[in-house]
Amino acid sequence: THCGIKNTQADLAYIFVPNCKGSAGLFTRNKFVSPTITHTKKALKNNILKAVIINSGNANAGTGLEGIGVVKQTASQAASLLGITSHEVVVASTGPIAKPMPLNALTEGLNAMLAQPMTQNGHKAATAILTTDTFSKEAFHEAEIAHHTIQIAGMTKGSGMIAPNMATTLTFLATNANLHSSRLHKMLQKAVDISFNMLSVDTDTSTNDMILIFSTGEHSFNVRSNEELSSFQTLLNETCINLTKQIAKDGEGSKKMIEVCVLNSASVSDARKIALNIVNSPLVKTAIHGANPNWGRVLAAAGKDPSVKLNPHKIDLHFGDFQVLAKGEPIPFNNQVLEEILGKDTIHICFNMNIGHATATSWGCELTKGYININTDYN
Amino acid sequence: THCGIKNTQADLAYIFVPNCKGSAGLFTRNKFVSPTITHTKKALKNNILKAVIINSGNANAGTGLEGIGVVKQTASQAASLLGITSHEVVVASTGPIAKPMPLNALTEGLNAMLAQPMTQNGHKAATAILTTDTFSKEAFHEAEIAHHTIQIAGMTKGSGMIAPNMATTLTFLATNANLHSSRLHKMLQKAVDISFNMLSVDTDTSTNDMILIFSTGEHSFNVRSNEELSSFQTLLNETCINLTKQIAKDGEGSKKMIEVCVLNSASVSDARKIALNIVNSPLVKTAIHGANPNWGRVLAAAGKDPSVKLNPHKIDLHFGDFQVLAKGEPIPFNNQVLEEILGKDTIHICFNMNIGHATATSWGCELTKGYININTDYN
Repeated sequence: THCGIKNTQADLAYIFVPNCKGSAGLFTRNKFVSPTITHTKKALKNNILKAVIINSGNANAGTGLEGIGVVKQTASQAASLLGITSHEVVVASTGPIAKPMPLNALTEGLNAMLAQPMTQNGHKAATAILTTDTFSKEAFHEAEIAHHTIQIAGMTKGSGMIAPNMATTLTFLATNANLHSSRLHKMLQKAVDISFNMLSVDTDTSTNDMILIFSTGEHSFNVRSNEELSSFQTLLNETCINLTKQIAKDGEGSKKMIEVCVLNSASVSDARKIALNIVNSPLVKTAIHGANPNWGRVLAAAGKDPSVKLNPHKIDLHFGDFQVLAKGEPIPFNNQVLEEILGKDTIHICFNMNIGHATATSWGCELTKGYININTDYN
Repeated sequence: THCGIKNTQADLAYIFVPNCKGSAGLFTRNKFVSPTITHTKKALKNNILKAVIINSGNANAGTGLEGIGVVKQTASQAASLLGITSHEVVVASTGPIAKPMPLNALTEGLNAMLAQPMTQNGHKAATAILTTDTFSKEAFHEAEIAHHTIQIAGMTKGSGMIAPNMATTLTFLATNANLHSSRLHKMLQKAVDISFNMLSVDTDTSTNDMILIFSTGEHSFNVRSNEELSSFQTLLNETCINLTKQIAKDGEGSKKMIEVCVLNSASVSDARKIALNIVNSPLVKTAIHGANPNWGRVLAAAGKDPSVKLNPHKIDLHFGDFQVLAKGEPIPFNNQVLEEILGKDTIHICFNMNIGHATATSWGCELTKGYININTDYN
């Protein structure tokens, strides 16, 4: 719905899972957090969550004691309207930081929205949680596990201030698999580590990042079967990677997605650092924006963390199928070929470190004047 | 001189200190380094350096075996022309990475330049080492120490790919103080830690960063006197901070310098991380570019490293003399006042953490369309 936090666009949504059998969440590790994060963490600790109220247009962070009051009141108002306890409903906010929340608009909007809970309006909700996004981000994945059709549905938002640590942006998932909260938490952590946590639009970590998953408990499977659990993990990974790529594609001001694979690194931690340092490099991002074949910048970015193991004389570097470096020696080539590859919508950069067996993949986007335009003004 | 590495601008310079009594250097910690770094580190280990040959227009990095040959030949050619050994001369390069060095131009240029060594042409040299810089960066500081006028002269370059770790960019210093190499090294490290290492234009660390200091040994002072040594350390710090600020002022595409002070932090390491995370935040940099009073972004940037100690309820935040946050509570204010402060040439941001006694200062610049323009094309 539109309640008036934003001028005209939808700014308030909710998810309600009355029969929720398990819930889990991951949160930003920023030291300045919105009271929505504090509230949700606490609620999740001792309860199975049944609902989340989400607003865009105001992050309710850096808002002091007043901000804490807003979250408490929202949760208790929503709980009474939905007929659940206020420990079962959490709040997620996104938008500018350090602006007072228009509490009246929020209260009235909640009353109107929750008076008649609706089903099957996921797309509308996915739209109401957006900030500078240019499109809504939804995913639906399913697989046959233990003779059941297991489904995961999700939505996410995010375009700027995207450099997740533990979670990112606002993401909400629901599955019909019957998994209890602590197992969901472990599986969510694994999926987020190789998806949202490997995404960066601009290195800036939000104060409000949150990912929540709800289980409706429809279909059980044998939790002692590694095969069944691992099938569900794969499904969850796919869903999270799908949503992650949608955020990378919609990076503020960007039309190009960058995917960096690091192969045969000494450790997963090294591979992750190298992959993230490349998608985070403003010089790599601007070179890709300009389809500028200045690939030396990718080398500089890959090497910039002195803690990673790396042998410059063993490295292969590819842009798509096109190799520019073999065992540390540059391969002479025609700039035009590389310019063409860099002109595409998706840029695949692959580093083969040739010193171990660990791999990692990261996602990011180009850096453009559009990003500057958006962020000189946004408040 | 101009030797032809660049199209028309000066691209080759040298420093020759025939009577050098001590030398020290610090180098990039990027894992991909130019062979100029490897060569210079090795030479410095066992020798007092007497000369450095500096070229701009080509970084000679990512150039494989050919690049190593270029450095060796340059050092030995220069040594023979200057009448010193090839272990006493080092090479520093800056410019695009992963482009073959035009060796003929370099060889002929060296012959012409060193045929008649000149004195007192520092400004010309400071100009020849520039890349995307818009002005040359020089400093001259002096102080009375032990009845002598102790002087330090220096030049530096740098505008993009500036996020030093151990050293930055290319910086060359000379002093008439008589200090041996190992003492110079320690004092240089201290000065660089609070100057160049607290500077960031774009988070990207160069493959070629180097700072060298030469002592002409004219004036000795009592190295057992803490007071005399500490006076020299202060002079060296001032010189390095002066050059650091010049780089911040000339950040690619930027017209505004950002200076962030973090006071009363739990540890120096925390204070440094917080100060650097703020000058590195693209969202802070674009907000400052747009004189956009969205100061919540400064909070988000300060908190983004989960390893730092920080109590959100104790923090004071000032822009210049203007306070926006007191003990974690926002102070209501008129946006126009903050917009005016953010419209100035130098933006002072001061965080008082109020939980300890450690401080740090960092320097950076705004992020503009000029940066995008320069870096979509530069190669």
